[in-house]
Amino acid sequence: MNSQQNEIRFQPDGIRISVGNGTTILEAAQRAGIVLNSFCGGVGTCDKCLVELQSQAKPVKACQYHITGDLVVTIPDSSRFFEQKILEEGITGTAKLDPSVRKHYLELTPPSLDDLRSDDRRLIDAVHESAKQSVEAVEPDISVEADQIDATGKSGAVGKSCERDEIALTIDRDLLGKLPGVLRENNFQVTAVCNDDRVFAVEPGDTSGELFGVAVDVGTTTVVANLVDLNSGKTVAVASGTNPQVTYGDDVISRIQHSRDKPDGLEQLHRQIIGCLNELVRETSQKAGIAAEAVYELVAAGNATMQHLVLGVPVVQIAEAPYVSAFSAAINASAQQLGLKINPHGNVYVMPSVAAHVGGDTVAVTLSAAMRHSSSINMALDIGTNGEIVLGNRDRLLTCSTAAGPAFEGARIRQGMRGATGAIERVHINDDVEIAVIGGGQAAGICGSGLIDALAELLNAGVIEPSGKLLSGDDLPENIPATIRRRVIEVEGRPAFVLAEKDQAKQDEPITLTQKDIREVQLGKGAIYAGMVTLMHVLEIEPDQISRLYLAGAFGNYIRPESARRIGLLPNIELSRIQPIGNAAGTGAREVLLSRLARKHAKELSVEMEYVELAGRADFQDIFGSSMMFPKP
Amino acid sequence: MNSQQNEIRFQPDGIRISVGNGTTILEAAQRAGIVLNSFCGGVGTCDKCLVELQSQAKPVKACQYHITGDLVVTIPDSSRFFEQKILEEGITGTAKLDPSVRKHYLELTPPSLDDLRSDDRRLIDAVHESAKQSVEAVEPDISVEADQIDATGKSGAVGKSCERDEIALTIDRDLLGKLPGVLRENNFQVTAVCNDDRVFAVEPGDTSGELFGVAVDVGTTTVVANLVDLNSGKTVAVASGTNPQVTYGDDVISRIQHSRDKPDGLEQLHRQIIGCLNELVRETSQKAGIAAEAVYELVAAGNATMQHLVLGVPVVQIAEAPYVSAFSAAINASAQQLGLKINPHGNVYVMPSVAAHVGGDTVAVTLSAAMRHSSSINMALDIGTNGEIVLGNRDRLLTCSTAAGPAFEGARIRQGMRGATGAIERVHINDDVEIAVIGGGQAAGICGSGLIDALAELLNAGVIEPSGKLLSGDDLPENIPATIRRRVIEVEGRPAFVLAEKDQAKQDEPITLTQKDIREVQLGKGAIYAGMVTLMHVLEIEPDQISRLYLAGAFGNYIRPESARRIGLLPNIELSRIQPIGNAAGTGAREVLLSRLARKHAKELSVEMEYVELAGRADFQDIFGSSMMFPKP
Repeated sequence: MNSQQNEIRFQPDGIRISVGNGTTILEAAQRAGIVLNSFCGGVGTCDKCLVELQSQAKPVKACQYHITGDLVVTIPDSSRFFEQKILEEGITGTAKLDPSVRKHYLELTPPSLDDLRSDDRRLIDAVHESAKQSVEAVEPDISVEADQIDATGKSGAVGKSCERDEIALTIDRDLLGKLPGVLRENNFQVTAVCNDDRVFAVEPGDTSGELFGVAVDVGTTTVVANLVDLNSGKTVAVASGTNPQVTYGDDVISRIQHSRDKPDGLEQLHRQIIGCLNELVRETSQKAGIAAEAVYELVAAGNATMQHLVLGVPVVQIAEAPYVSAFSAAINASAQQLGLKINPHGNVYVMPSVAAHVGGDTVAVTLSAAMRHSSSINMALDIGTNGEIVLGNRDRLLTCSTAAGPAFEGARIRQGMRGATGAIERVHINDDVEIAVIGGGQAAGICGSGLIDALAELLNAGVIEPSGKLLSGDDLPENIPATIRRRVIEVEGRPAFVLAEKDQAKQDEPITLTQKDIREVQLGKGAIYAGMVTLMHVLEIEPDQISRLYLAGAFGNYIRPESARRIGLLPNIELSRIQPIGNAAGTGAREVLLSRLARKHAKELSVEMEYVELAGRADFQDIFGSSMMFPKP
Repeated sequence: MNSQQNEIRFQPDGIRISVGNGTTILEAAQRAGIVLNSFCGGVGTCDKCLVELQSQAKPVKACQYHITGDLVVTIPDSSRFFEQKILEEGITGTAKLDPSVRKHYLELTPPSLDDLRSDDRRLIDAVHESAKQSVEAVEPDISVEADQIDATGKSGAVGKSCERDEIALTIDRDLLGKLPGVLRENNFQVTAVCNDDRVFAVEPGDTSGELFGVAVDVGTTTVVANLVDLNSGKTVAVASGTNPQVTYGDDVISRIQHSRDKPDGLEQLHRQIIGCLNELVRETSQKAGIAAEAVYELVAAGNATMQHLVLGVPVVQIAEAPYVSAFSAAINASAQQLGLKINPHGNVYVMPSVAAHVGGDTVAVTLSAAMRHSSSINMALDIGTNGEIVLGNRDRLLTCSTAAGPAFEGARIRQGMRGATGAIERVHINDDVEIAVIGGGQAAGICGSGLIDALAELLNAGVIEPSGKLLSGDDLPENIPATIRRRVIEVEGRPAFVLAEKDQAKQDEPITLTQKDIREVQLGKGAIYAGMVTLMHVLEIEPDQISRLYLAGAFGNYIRPESARRIGLLPNIELSRIQPIGNAAGTGAREVLLSRLARKHAKELSVEMEYVELAGRADFQDIFGSSMMFPKP
């Protein structure tokens, strides 16, 4: 573990990232938001993560290649998890590029005595005709929609747009007022923008090349926006920012309290998140060199509270027993009415959700992992302040939410911090403690993945007992070398383990793991584990029946599955079956932005998924009690 | 013809009207807006207009009973034209009471650990359940919808509401913000208001009894509003007012010019008609003793220009060759956005239209006369400044618009006036001239029906030649008695005929018919006649193949068909086949308000009706030239 930073560039994505020496290409790709296959658990046996390096003639395994210098890495679709998924499962929501928002450049015949159609009918007829031609051009048979597979998931197929139900295509009233003028001032050459069953804008000339959407993962802490070219399906810019609502507290409960306790609290929170979305739209469009007006749709996926706040809908009932949402259906809203600065006629689509504690982000994760189309049973886990779990297959999907606690996000950990520069993200104990620090400099704290690593290593070393007790002095096993032994010190009267010595020059205190920190992790991992076991009970399956365990979200991306399994955060499943799937909520939101079929699947998913309320279950309480222990070696 | 006024009260409508001695009950009913059957043309042979008088045991024929005193008249459904129509044609748009707007009173189960549905899902599930129960209660088999006939057209059937497409029922975003509060403040007992596929309001407690709509005939001159109870289908109040846009001119052209010439002209006209609609809503709701907020939908039928102005959509292209509308589809708009003071969540439905000169009012007329469902060929004529004509049957429907000119509305006639108090409305020539004046007092001018009567009688007497020349002095036939002969005077150097002597005490001048007045009528009736003949040419039929000629609108109601036929305004069709159908545009608008099936039919009609542009046709020009002559006796 060396602090030298290397510049890695991924192609064809065009994403750059800096990583320390020794990092594998698989890990680097994950941090860049690119999810590679790792069916063997990253041990180098499945050959599914092959990538090409500019410097080498033959492909290399991304999981086995340790970075020691700058690289340009080209990743074929066959090594990408979501693209591979399509081949594997045979059907997914992303089979076709078929966004809700479409553009049609039209050269209309001006009215004459022989053709006295009204402006609206003239326009709608032409849109129908244009849509029909696109379908005929690329898609001779459109009847196979739901079952046909597009191997790449990214073909240029433009079909099944506004024409699906000819009679239903309407023109927005607001547009009618402008229609006669726009047509006549532009010699009847205009671009119609339509959204499913309505034409909502008509633009002068040919603007059909400018058609973008934004898929946003609205996290309680971090908001990530993907600007997507709806003509090609490609992400053209990514930006993320801190949710400005954090000024009212880290977790959803504190936000809900603010909305309840201040007269304009709800409006404040609403305006803040809209402001954040506006900033991300501005940033991504600037990066991509497009106008924000060329963005016609924003898809928002988040937990129920965030989704309510995006729309400005009251949230108090989410925090009061028995905890219900104001809405769980997918909501379409006017961008303009929400004050969202995309095209003023643009649409905001908020993902459908399952329950007050299983939001649209979980639906998006489930969608992107194609769990609904799988015959084998899979499990998905998304850890944040809460841990949402989904378990099942195409026959039945269960979901629950556990109060994971903020430990894995660095909160309530004495020197905890988020996975930012200075955070210890990896811990290895051999003769002494080796750490990796994000950014490669001096350690400033410890983040979730470092915490799990540290616990796993200390459990293996025997410094921590299965009960969670941090041993000290004579209690420590005899075989522990002095290099480790001297790291057990006392902080505030209780044992603590020094992960990074203090830098004398800078007068920092050492970075330690305290007994209290360990207890916090036990609470969080116990709740998550108990949630997973409870769902397995309900589905009447054993862990070995789980074909694959997907780890979603930034956290799932950074932890070492081996360590997570060691501390009992994950059940005892073969490593080869544990697959980090990155920002799967964002991926699901992007699918929904790009495919009406995916949108339909999301809606169906949200209704079909069975919510298991853990609070009311005796078995959950029992399992939780015993789950706080760490597994024996 | 006597000027004594009698008070007639029609039951069960509850409408009162004052008429002069000698008026038939048929005529009185027409003026009250109630259309009776007159299959024999009012000659007393068909027995289809039987009504009951309080004073008589046996029913009397409305067409044969001449009023000589106050009366209470009860009209059975079997004598009413539109109700009879349903029996006759077997199918119409009014088969079922099935308004777009529905209410469901719901007593929701509050959320619990066993039932954690979100507020929106809880509400939608309950609406579905409520809708299903209503259907089951009154309508065991809902699959026959389009073909089943409801003999009364007014049964209390409440069915096929929001539940038609379960998956599509959504909740308005605006409502979501209020939903959690409204539910919890009202112990989950609320009334959901839905419109087809969306729930757009949720009201505290049970308000299901308060559900009203307004059907409006938006005329260029007069606007008539019917407030309808959507639970019973009954009209509960009627009000009419002058279209305030008349300050910018009598006809649509002058309105369009105003919109073009003034920077805010369009907005002015829009605001004026919205103001007028608001006044009529206020007046009708006051009469009925309900709150304007209990009105959830307004259906507007008018010519294309009026419909554009209701929505504030530009109209200049309607007046510029080749004359097209901005829209012809049916438009749904937010009442609140339009500034219409009904329920703020209410909907404004603007009728679909056919062409720039065949508006939603003509579609409404065609709908209410059930022409689309008739196997026999019928013709409808609606005379205003323009004359819209519809001809055909269920196989094919043609329509055109002719510039009738303003003569029949009293404009460009020297002493012309609208059909108001003081207008000569009937003229009969025997030994001398007998006139009937509206209101029974001194004649102040002549209205359209009086004009047609006068011309017909003077043609019969030989005072006017078929060329239209008004004879005077020695040119008059010898057999004309002195009582008539002395009425031919000179006005502004040309012959004129005195219809009413001047009242010396009041220094009024006599009411005369001038040569120029006659020419104006010739122009108008020639255009209408030529339009009718052109449509017959296109359909390749002769007048005797027309099963029925419907006269729509106030004018059609007041004229004597015999006189109209005599002057060649109407083709030579048996009187028994000519049927005034009253404010058929308003009736059509009411049907659309009350029945989603009618709404569907209107939409289909507007697309199916073939617009025949007369301006481009040589045959029309030829016929027009010869049509200005009066038929020989």
